[in-house]
Amino acid sequence: MEIYLEYLVMLPGPTNVPERVTRSMFTHMINHRSKDFVKLYVDTIEKSQKIFDTTSDVVALSASGTGAVEASVVNMVKKGDKVIIPVNGEFSSRLSTMLEWAGANVIRLTTPFGQNATFDQVKEAFDNNKDVKAFYVVWNETSTGTMVKYLDKIKDLTARNDSFYVVDGVSILGGEEFHMDKWGVDVCVTGAQKALAAPPGISPIAVSQKAKKHMIANPPPTFYFNMARYFKYYDDTKETPFTPAIPLLYAYREALDIILEEGIENRIRRHRVCSDALYSGLSTMGLSPFAKEDARSTVVIALNYLQGLDDKTFRGTLSEKFRVLVAGGFGELKGKVFRVGCMGEVHKYHVMRTISAIASTLDMMGYKTNPDAIKVAEDKLRAL
Amino acid sequence: MEIYLEYLVMLPGPTNVPERVTRSMFTHMINHRSKDFVKLYVDTIEKSQKIFDTTSDVVALSASGTGAVEASVVNMVKKGDKVIIPVNGEFSSRLSTMLEWAGANVIRLTTPFGQNATFDQVKEAFDNNKDVKAFYVVWNETSTGTMVKYLDKIKDLTARNDSFYVVDGVSILGGEEFHMDKWGVDVCVTGAQKALAAPPGISPIAVSQKAKKHMIANPPPTFYFNMARYFKYYDDTKETPFTPAIPLLYAYREALDIILEEGIENRIRRHRVCSDALYSGLSTMGLSPFAKEDARSTVVIALNYLQGLDDKTFRGTLSEKFRVLVAGGFGELKGKVFRVGCMGEVHKYHVMRTISAIASTLDMMGYKTNPDAIKVAEDKLRAL
Repeated sequence: MEIYLEYLVMLPGPTNVPERVTRSMFTHMINHRSKDFVKLYVDTIEKSQKIFDTTSDVVALSASGTGAVEASVVNMVKKGDKVIIPVNGEFSSRLSTMLEWAGANVIRLTTPFGQNATFDQVKEAFDNNKDVKAFYVVWNETSTGTMVKYLDKIKDLTARNDSFYVVDGVSILGGEEFHMDKWGVDVCVTGAQKALAAPPGISPIAVSQKAKKHMIANPPPTFYFNMARYFKYYDDTKETPFTPAIPLLYAYREALDIILEEGIENRIRRHRVCSDALYSGLSTMGLSPFAKEDARSTVVIALNYLQGLDDKTFRGTLSEKFRVLVAGGFGELKGKVFRVGCMGEVHKYHVMRTISAIASTLDMMGYKTNPDAIKVAEDKLRAL
Repeated sequence: MEIYLEYLVMLPGPTNVPERVTRSMFTHMINHRSKDFVKLYVDTIEKSQKIFDTTSDVVALSASGTGAVEASVVNMVKKGDKVIIPVNGEFSSRLSTMLEWAGANVIRLTTPFGQNATFDQVKEAFDNNKDVKAFYVVWNETSTGTMVKYLDKIKDLTARNDSFYVVDGVSILGGEEFHMDKWGVDVCVTGAQKALAAPPGISPIAVSQKAKKHMIANPPPTFYFNMARYFKYYDDTKETPFTPAIPLLYAYREALDIILEEGIENRIRRHRVCSDALYSGLSTMGLSPFAKEDARSTVVIALNYLQGLDDKTFRGTLSEKFRVLVAGGFGELKGKVFRVGCMGEVHKYHVMRTISAIASTLDMMGYKTNPDAIKVAEDKLRAL
């Protein structure tokens, strides 16, 4: 018999989608060149601005996060531009490749997986490269569960060197604190299916006035990811240049409504408390976090596998017996870590059920786990 | 009071989406790296192959049709490649620009809007360019309502010159006859929101074995539209390299089920009868088709506006008073024509209601129309 019961989706995206959001897609088709669409899209964009905390332009691309990150590269970087980027995982590595393909002279600040380049290292790179054109940073490295914690301090460096500041916030925006305008960020990219708790397929990108001017003056030879076209359509008619994924825009807007109803600060606090409970509970159980303590993400928790613990059996049991989904390792961490998403709807229940199911799975696989884990997590969750 | 009643969507995409399709999106989130996803995706791809009539690879891109067309260019064309393309409207013009951006030496077979290059003109271009690397053709020029009718004859030319044969079938596949393998097509692109009657956001691209080899050997410097990555993921794990728009894949698969239940031949016949009824009925009413008779599309009907008939008032009345959506003209045809989509679910009811609403709108705007129009259309529809 096939089981259709829903999963507890503790992946680093896609994540659990509230039923209200899924239900919002159940509507009739509209014309994407009409007042109906303009109403939907303008509302979506204005609500997105609140999430980015910006008054600048936001474009909702119909693509995955990778597509939007690619847009942030091909529209910003010209051949020969010097770009600084910290590299410490799969996604920052991929982004640095994109920058090279765009012709950039890439200065990689490489640190071991699980660690971040320090602010001083970033500062030093700026000091040594006065002609730097842009600083790119993957805010949350989904592949290793690390998060950069000095986004608010970069502004002074980019202002000094008159360079652009680009943040890949795909797997985190909506789950952690972010102030685009206050922090002087020029471009920030995110994905709907992560901390925003919408289905995958929409990836918003926010662009400062300065970066917008730069993009319009330097349009890349592409249609689909040509930001100048999106700006022109929005400025002229509040539409998108190409047919957008209309049902997903309804879903994304509904997800934004839920976020604004809860309040962004409350939401961030909830993510922090839940991740604290997950780190504490799972550590007590005997599973050590992969990331160094000062680099740990509050939205993606990467854990080292215990000696001999088989990835496929572990995640298969969790999924099949308990219907809890967690992700495996990425690239060279495949089989060495598993990753728990702490995103979007995540609340007490999600944390407790996840820890409980992991404990039971480890028990079934013959590992003795510390029964205090669940109590430790529950204690932490009292903060909610 | 705001009206939420559904529209009759007679646009050249998006089109009416059957409720069964919309409803299929109302499901729980799954992991895109799991057996659940593989089952969904493989099923979707295998059903797509039937629509393209091919045994070769199909990739369902999470993007609009323009994105998939761009993929068909950047993965196929290398700098200096000679490419022949008929140009007779907005979309073929756009495609020829994409080809130039990819570095191609583009031979445009330009004809006036509303006409197609003849097969003899295409043959002559092949005769004069023995070193041609690819023939690109927009099967259905959505902007003008024309359709190329000799796709089955190109094979001999491309075989003779050992060139690739690429078909942009975005606005028509599923509504007209197509046999990818039999006709020797190397790449065919389509969009879910046109004759396939799914929501927008998924754009399938089918690739012959020969073109697949070429793409793998010549990967472009892009992630999102890098076909070699999609092939590798599918061949290795039956997954997609980037997080796909999962709800739209459910919808697209459901739309394919509906097509296969009806039978592709029945579906094509239905499109032909409905477009015949629309052409006859609207011509009787006094609205002349924009396209030359031998070039007329069976899925997009472009009609010349009557003298002095204002586009905005006409389409606004049609939409607001009768909730029937038709599209305006594109580019230089803006205000000169309107376009009726004859796609997907289109059946007797759609045709009759559209003709009736157009007649009433024209009457309201003070134009005397021939009352025989509706009877002429009904007669044609008896063939169904």
